[in-house]
Amino acid sequence: MSKNAREQAVLGAVRERREKVNAAIDEDLPAQRPERLYEAARYLLEAGGKRLRPAVLLLTAEALADVEPGSTDYREFPDLTGGDVDVMSAAVSIEVIQSFTLIHDDIMDDDDLRRGVPAVHREYDTETAILAGDTLYSKAFEIMLQTGAPPERGMGAMQTLAETCTHICEGQALDVDFETRTDVLPDEYMEMVELKTAVLYAAAASIPAVLLGADDDTVEALYDYGVKAGQAFQIHDDVLDLTVPSEQLGKQRGSDLVEGKKTVISLHAAEHGVDVEDLLDADDPDEVTDADVEAAVEQLREVGSIEYARECADELVAEAKAHLDVLPDNEAHHRLEQVADYLVERGY
Amino acid sequence: MSKNAREQAVLGAVRERREKVNAAIDEDLPAQRPERLYEAARYLLEAGGKRLRPAVLLLTAEALADVEPGSTDYREFPDLTGGDVDVMSAAVSIEVIQSFTLIHDDIMDDDDLRRGVPAVHREYDTETAILAGDTLYSKAFEIMLQTGAPPERGMGAMQTLAETCTHICEGQALDVDFETRTDVLPDEYMEMVELKTAVLYAAAASIPAVLLGADDDTVEALYDYGVKAGQAFQIHDDVLDLTVPSEQLGKQRGSDLVEGKKTVISLHAAEHGVDVEDLLDADDPDEVTDADVEAAVEQLREVGSIEYARECADELVAEAKAHLDVLPDNEAHHRLEQVADYLVERGY
Repeated sequence: MSKNAREQAVLGAVRERREKVNAAIDEDLPAQRPERLYEAARYLLEAGGKRLRPAVLLLTAEALADVEPGSTDYREFPDLTGGDVDVMSAAVSIEVIQSFTLIHDDIMDDDDLRRGVPAVHREYDTETAILAGDTLYSKAFEIMLQTGAPPERGMGAMQTLAETCTHICEGQALDVDFETRTDVLPDEYMEMVELKTAVLYAAAASIPAVLLGADDDTVEALYDYGVKAGQAFQIHDDVLDLTVPSEQLGKQRGSDLVEGKKTVISLHAAEHGVDVEDLLDADDPDEVTDADVEAAVEQLREVGSIEYARECADELVAEAKAHLDVLPDNEAHHRLEQVADYLVERGY
Repeated sequence: MSKNAREQAVLGAVRERREKVNAAIDEDLPAQRPERLYEAARYLLEAGGKRLRPAVLLLTAEALADVEPGSTDYREFPDLTGGDVDVMSAAVSIEVIQSFTLIHDDIMDDDDLRRGVPAVHREYDTETAILAGDTLYSKAFEIMLQTGAPPERGMGAMQTLAETCTHICEGQALDVDFETRTDVLPDEYMEMVELKTAVLYAAAASIPAVLLGADDDTVEALYDYGVKAGQAFQIHDDVLDLTVPSEQLGKQRGSDLVEGKKTVISLHAAEHGVDVEDLLDADDPDEVTDADVEAAVEQLREVGSIEYARECADELVAEAKAHLDVLPDNEAHHRLEQVADYLVERGY
C-alpha cells in the first residue's frame, strides 16, 4: 500500500472513532460546577486534537476481540471471557491524562500556543491551569474506574494508569534536566522519551488487553508496541518541530532548539561537530524568524542529523509492528500496523 | 477527662503512629532517580507534619478490627473476614495526597512558608514544584494499590481516593473564586470547606472500613465523621491563622485576611457590619505587623466573630463524634472521639 493510501486509511480509522470519543468525553467529563474550573479543564480537549491514543486503544480492543472495526458498541464491548467491558471509558481516561500533561507542560515550558489556541495558563491564568490539570488527573482515574471490568482487571488497569503518570512526570523531569546538560547520552535520551511520551501509547495499547482479560504475554507485547511506536512518534515530533511551518504546527517552529531541548537530532549534530547551542541564539521562541530556523535546519541537514532521526524512527516502527504478532490476523491488527507507520509519516 | 489530659492522650496516640508512618513513607516513596524530582517531592514530607490523617486512618482500622491500639502490624492487619490487609499503605497514600495539595496550593496562593520551611516552589522553583506535586499524585494511587485487599475493596478505595482528589480541586477553585466575591453565603462556605479540606479526613476515616470489608452503613458513617471533623478542623485553622504567633504557625499570621480568604469568621464579621476587606490593608502578608493583626482580631472579637467560629467548630465536633456509634466500644473508638475534640482545641 502506498504511503498516501496508508495515511488515508489511518486517518479514516482515527476520524471514525474521533466523533464517538468526543461524545464520550462530554459524557464522562461534563461541564459542571465550579464552572470556570471545568471550562479550563475542558478547554484544550475542546480545542481539538486527533484522539490518536484513544483510537489506538479502541483498535487494540477490536483486534483482540476479533470484531470488525467500528461494528461494536465501545461501551458494551465483548471481552475474551464472555462478559462485556466499557473500553470507551478507558479511551477517554487516556485522552484526559494526555490533556492534563499538556496543560502542566505548557506552564513549565512557558509555551504560549497549543493546538493553535492560547495555552490554558495564557487563556486563563497559571493558578487555574495548575488546578485544571489536577482536576483532569483525578477525573482520569475516576473515568478509568467505570469500565465495569471484573475488579482484578480494573485494578490492573489502574496500576498501569498510575505507573504511567509517574513515568510521565519522571520523563518531564529528565527532559528539563537535560536542557542544562551537555553530556546527555543517546540511551538516556531514549529512556527520557520512553518515560515522557511513549508510556502513554503503551498504556493505550495494553490497557484494553488487561480489561478484556488477555494473557500476560499479550499485555506485555502490546505494551512494547506502544513504547516503540511512542518513541518513534516523539522522534518524528522532534523532526516536525524543525521542518513544519508554525501555522501548521500550532506553535512556533524551532522552539525545541531555542529552549535547548535535547533531541535525537541535536545529540547527533553535537556529536558531529555542530555547535547546537548557538544554532538559534534567542531567549524566546518568538524572537526567531522562519529564516533563522531554516538556516539552522540546513546545518543539521548537512551533517545528516535530520536523516539520522528519520532512520531511528523507522527502525522503532519496525520493532513496534513486530510486537503486534500476538494479535489475531484481522483488519484492526492491520490498522494498528498502519498507525505505527503513520506516526512517523504524518506531516504534523 | 480534662482538655489537657485529652490532648496528651491524642498527641500520644498520634506520636506512637508517626514514627511507623514516617518509616512507611520512606519505604513506599523512597528517594530515587530523577534525584531532584524525588527530593522536591519528599521535601515537605521530610519537613515534618503531625501525620494526623494517617493516625485517623490507623485508629479507625484498629477500632473496626477491635484490636488493642498499637498492638498489631499495620502491614498485615486483620480484616473483618479472616484475611489481612496492608492498611499502612492506605495511610501513606492519604498523607502523600495531603503533601501534593500543599505543594500546589502554596504555588497558587504564592505562600512562602510551610511547616516553618520555604514552600517547595521557593526552595526549588515553580516548574519543579508543579512536577513534584504531580509525581506525588500518581504515587499516592500506586501506593493505595498495594494494600493487598480483595480487588473489589481495592477498587472501592481507589474510587474514594479519586473522588476525594477531584473534590479537593473543586474546593480549592471555590476558595479562590470566593476571594473576589462579596456575596458568599455560609452554606457555600461550608460546602467549600467540605470539598477543600474535610473530604481528606473523610477518606482517611472511611477507606480502612472499605479495605477491611465493613458494611456500607459503617463506611458511610465513618465518612461523615471525617467530613464533620474536617470541617471543624478547617474552621479552627481559620481561628488559629488569626490568633497564633507566626513562628508557631509556621507561616505569617493573618495571611487569610490579607489574601481576602473567606472564612466563617470573615463572613460573620461582614454580616455584623465590619468592613472586612479593609481590616488588613496590604497586598502581601509580609507587609503586615503583628500589631496590625492584633488590632484586626480585636475588631473581630468585639462583634463576636471569633467566638461564633469556635461555636460552629464545637457543634461540628459533636456531630462528628455521634457518627462513631457504628464502631465497637473500644479504646481506639474512644481515641477517635478525642481526636475530633483535639482538632478544635489544638494550639497550632
